Amino acid sequence: MSEINKRDQLIKQWIKETAEMIEDAKEESLKVEEKSARNDLVTNMDKQIEEALTNKIRSNFPEDRICGEEGFGDNLEDLNGTVWFIDPIDGTLNFVLQQENFAVMIAVYEEGKGVQGYIYDVTSKKLYHGIKGQGVFCNDKPLSAPENKGLSEGLMATNSQLMTQDAFSEYRVIAGKSMGVRMLGSAGLEVIELIKGNVIAYVATKLSPWDIAPGKIMLEEFGYKISNFSGEPVNLLKTNQTIFSTARAFDEIVTNK
Amino acid sequence: MSEINKRDQLIKQWIKETAEMIEDAKEESLKVEEKSARNDLVTNMDKQIEEALTNKIRSNFPEDRICGEEGFGDNLEDLNGTVWFIDPIDGTLNFVLQQENFAVMIAVYEEGKGVQGYIYDVTSKKLYHGIKGQGVFCNDKPLSAPENKGLSEGLMATNSQLMTQDAFSEYRVIAGKSMGVRMLGSAGLEVIELIKGNVIAYVATKLSPWDIAPGKIMLEEFGYKISNFSGEPVNLLKTNQTIFSTARAFDEIVTNK
Repeated sequence: MSEINKRDQLIKQWIKETAEMIEDAKEESLKVEEKSARNDLVTNMDKQIEEALTNKIRSNFPEDRICGEEGFGDNLEDLNGTVWFIDPIDGTLNFVLQQENFAVMIAVYEEGKGVQGYIYDVTSKKLYHGIKGQGVFCNDKPLSAPENKGLSEGLMATNSQLMTQDAFSEYRVIAGKSMGVRMLGSAGLEVIELIKGNVIAYVATKLSPWDIAPGKIMLEEFGYKISNFSGEPVNLLKTNQTIFSTARAFDEIVTNK
Repeated sequence: MSEINKRDQLIKQWIKETAEMIEDAKEESLKVEEKSARNDLVTNMDKQIEEALTNKIRSNFPEDRICGEEGFGDNLEDLNGTVWFIDPIDGTLNFVLQQENFAVMIAVYEEGKGVQGYIYDVTSKKLYHGIKGQGVFCNDKPLSAPENKGLSEGLMATNSQLMTQDAFSEYRVIAGKSMGVRMLGSAGLEVIELIKGNVIAYVATKLSPWDIAPGKIMLEEFGYKISNFSGEPVNLLKTNQTIFSTARAFDEIVTNK
């Protein structure tokens, strides 16, 4: 079995186990802490899941390194070798306030290049995954790439800050040229909207490497463009102002502002 | 059987039939037309559903009057007697672009007072309904009213225009005081988010009577406040800039701007 297939089988098993951990935890009360701001939260579940996933990766792939949201991984200064990106609960604010609309995300990169990415929509029990060169799948069923639509032909997803902060006012003009704005509060769920073709772009003021890594693999497989707000490649060692977009809308978004 | 119960049984049956019409129609190609603007669309399905519902209401309740989105109803100048509000497909843009994330909505008012409201989330097959004095239900299971949270304790839903148009900049400041913004692109689905307690307010620049009518009944049953942007009662004979909010967040939203 190839290394990619071995990881694929294990990741799918681990995501299933993670979903069971989340399901079981609904009974007990969640412990919530603030991180950098009053709406940047972490729960005991985020930590437990990341610790469990980190342990599984280390025992199966001791040579690999891990970049995770909650600090159980390694301090990376480069992307050499095999690197795993983990977001145990993407959309923690939704998880805490809604108990739905969040995702579990895992991605594997080799020498800085995306190999395989996984986003599990916990509420709808749908696992989206993509393997470079092999396509994108929903619950293992192959998907077709959405139409390459322009900005005025589709909906644009954003995060709250892009709409509420004065520093990003140019993006409100861009959003006004689309057919409408959508906001789900989870980078993973917005990437799923792109995979389905439900939106033509997702523009977010601040995404971490684990927010970007799995979607980048799947969306590039489908011909989407991914860059920072200056149109340069994203850097998976730091946070990025990030644009995911159809090729046609990309030029309009990067050039228009 | 009371008039309310008779209507309740019929409405549930009609919504089931409507869902089947939508399901069957997915095979054939949709005919889409622009109404007031490039992102204000109507399809042959909106029209077919409203015509079918209007005919059912007229044959069962010939005395009643109908206020519908697509023009098969009556031209109302008052709310005397029994008035039905129909939105055949709420979230037509999502219906056209995503084939999901839209709702079918029906409400009945007597002498201007809300009696029973229905919002059917077609994608998740969940029917939310409320009867004044009897509570709010999801697929006939009674729901509890969400906690009465303040603005800073929850998420705020809006429509695109509130975020992208300069005229509404004061609401971007208000949105920034919430924990985050969410936008689904369907008034009916945003009302469902309020019913679940997933958001604490929904603020929209332009809602029609059929967008407001069913949610008003259910949300008032749960202690929410509904008004126009000046804090005055909504008028179900015209479009309204509308605030649906927890009692606590309401004062903060209306007073803060």
